[in-house]
Amino acid sequence: MNKIARRMADIQPFHVMEILKRAHQLEAAGRDIIHLEVGEPDFPTPPTIVEAARDFLAGGHVHYTPALGLTALREAIARFYHDRFGADISPERIIVTPGASGALMLALAVTTDPGDEWLLPDPGYPSNRHLVRSFEGVARALPVDASTRFQPTPAQLADAWTARTRGLMVASPANPTGTLLTQAEIIALHEAVAARGGILIVDEIYQGLNYGVDASTALTSLEDVFVVNSFSKYFGMTGWRLGWVVAPQAYVRQIEKLAQHFFISPSTPAQHAALAAFTPATLEILEERRHAFAARRNTLLPALRELGFRFATEPQGAFYLYADISDLADNSETLARRLIEDAGVATTPGIDFGDNAPDRHLRIAYTTGEARLVEAAERIARVLRTG
Amino acid sequence: MNKIARRMADIQPFHVMEILKRAHQLEAAGRDIIHLEVGEPDFPTPPTIVEAARDFLAGGHVHYTPALGLTALREAIARFYHDRFGADISPERIIVTPGASGALMLALAVTTDPGDEWLLPDPGYPSNRHLVRSFEGVARALPVDASTRFQPTPAQLADAWTARTRGLMVASPANPTGTLLTQAEIIALHEAVAARGGILIVDEIYQGLNYGVDASTALTSLEDVFVVNSFSKYFGMTGWRLGWVVAPQAYVRQIEKLAQHFFISPSTPAQHAALAAFTPATLEILEERRHAFAARRNTLLPALRELGFRFATEPQGAFYLYADISDLADNSETLARRLIEDAGVATTPGIDFGDNAPDRHLRIAYTTGEARLVEAAERIARVLRTG
Repeated sequence: MNKIARRMADIQPFHVMEILKRAHQLEAAGRDIIHLEVGEPDFPTPPTIVEAARDFLAGGHVHYTPALGLTALREAIARFYHDRFGADISPERIIVTPGASGALMLALAVTTDPGDEWLLPDPGYPSNRHLVRSFEGVARALPVDASTRFQPTPAQLADAWTARTRGLMVASPANPTGTLLTQAEIIALHEAVAARGGILIVDEIYQGLNYGVDASTALTSLEDVFVVNSFSKYFGMTGWRLGWVVAPQAYVRQIEKLAQHFFISPSTPAQHAALAAFTPATLEILEERRHAFAARRNTLLPALRELGFRFATEPQGAFYLYADISDLADNSETLARRLIEDAGVATTPGIDFGDNAPDRHLRIAYTTGEARLVEAAERIARVLRTG
Repeated sequence: MNKIARRMADIQPFHVMEILKRAHQLEAAGRDIIHLEVGEPDFPTPPTIVEAARDFLAGGHVHYTPALGLTALREAIARFYHDRFGADISPERIIVTPGASGALMLALAVTTDPGDEWLLPDPGYPSNRHLVRSFEGVARALPVDASTRFQPTPAQLADAWTARTRGLMVASPANPTGTLLTQAEIIALHEAVAARGGILIVDEIYQGLNYGVDASTALTSLEDVFVVNSFSKYFGMTGWRLGWVVAPQAYVRQIEKLAQHFFISPSTPAQHAALAAFTPATLEILEERRHAFAARRNTLLPALRELGFRFATEPQGAFYLYADISDLADNSETLARRLIEDAGVATTPGIDFGDNAPDRHLRIAYTTGEARLVEAAERIARVLRTG
């Protein structure tokens, strides 16, 4: 017995796990490794959120919630959209999920027939194309580069669209590039998608982590759009596994059916924790952290530029720099290997993010403190000098 | 824009939600409702488990874990199999998941090509067939009744097997019928499946909730089998959303890829909580609860029999009675409606569990205290007398 479904041949692991495994080996051998490969904030969950969970847990009544999430949490998210972005969203359209991964699964499973194509910017978050494949859709890459701030354009979409295209997925801020779409760009992409009878999914998982530019949501301008979000990144709740999707009203009942069977309900402790995520006390902590991320970015970006890493476009969001390393090495995997072995600095080679010039790119996350970032740059400099 | 995937036409909601909604309406209007429809223990999570989570959370370091779960938890589960069942399972084969739902998704997605058939006992847990459909498989019902304790037989499997059949899913203890498979029956079913080059998935989600018979696992006898389990039921952790699947070694690396993209990792607080699930102090609490469930069953079963509910086979596990109501009413949905409206007793009509005589059956859960069960029987008696 050994019946592996065909889809598995197309589904790749996170390659960065090999880097991580090597980092752990080196650490076990006593080496000091600076982790610039990790896609989660180094900050702990804000104590206000933790305390809300601990208070809830004290009673021990950790039962299922409704499949779409606690009404109070859906209302709190709706209020957040109103208060921060001036977007009026009915709480009914907000579906709480096990992480943004769960949100993406629901959005794709409810819309995608076998053979339906989704257009995905490349480089992009790797799971997107594997989730499309999981539900027998076809992920088609839209190669993007610094000339459009690594974001797709309506013209590119027009070229790529076929009779089998179901829709377009974009991310703002984007992983791995840290670039944002302007509201005008989102509207133009939506117009191009809608004109073809397609669906737009906007990944706003890194919403709130933006530097020198205001946070925004597609929901300010658009109604018939799927917006995926998460408590992981801005709210510092990665391990809790909680996210949400705002769906067009016509899909909500269908999504509810899937949510029942996929998840029964999202984590109850995480939902009670998240009820404290939008309070003024929590938001104050989160804004302090955002400033810390901005300071890190402002330290690391020029330091890397000085070393010959190229950034033709300024990343303004998330906590990633997507560096063109072609002035430094022929191959980003080789360079990443050298950086971890010789400099003790872990980074993520481009291969994790698609097929569009992955050899030329490294993702560098500033999810560690400024002093460590400075040290990382110094160590990298030493290694490159001896190169 | 309104593109609903074709699979959604085949995916049904939990019909019991309509009963639950009506129960909440009646309660809001001041009526007292006895809940015998709920598929989760009424007991709170054991305080030992809750305290483990609260201690962990105090530090606030709630980060991602490995996609397959904390090594310590996988080892703890392996020790549990050894200590309680004498089954030696490598921790590497144990994959921690967001509930048993997540475990079922992984097992099906990694094995099922479009058009592949899965044989599922009917009545059975409704999500199984909808998860098969979600990954473009075809769920085929094996109608089972009291003559085989609602469990499929090798002969039935032989009749139903086709060139497109990928495997068989069974449950022991089963939902909604509360019946178990003996070890000999499991082995015989596995032999029949393996002889045809198929895959066996055994749902042991209600493992440990058994009365008058010892708990068991297919893993004592079988190696090439998927076994799905959960912290929800015996361990009283429904809302935490944590389960696991034991997979044949050859599938583990494939499943890891899927787990990364579907979930990133299971809930970190839930995993730290579950580390306390196998301690002697916790198991003592759980065994007390098991005795309470047994006492409830021993109260409710004869009381319902006296009222004309028929149980041709004795349920020995889970916390469900699957009653044949054909001596009492023509239709179980009508009866369920009457019981909630006139008796204030909520039950689950058979329609949620398949197409095999659902009109003739009601699922009655003893997930409430004995006094309430006695009162429920009295109230039902009054309503039936006035019928």
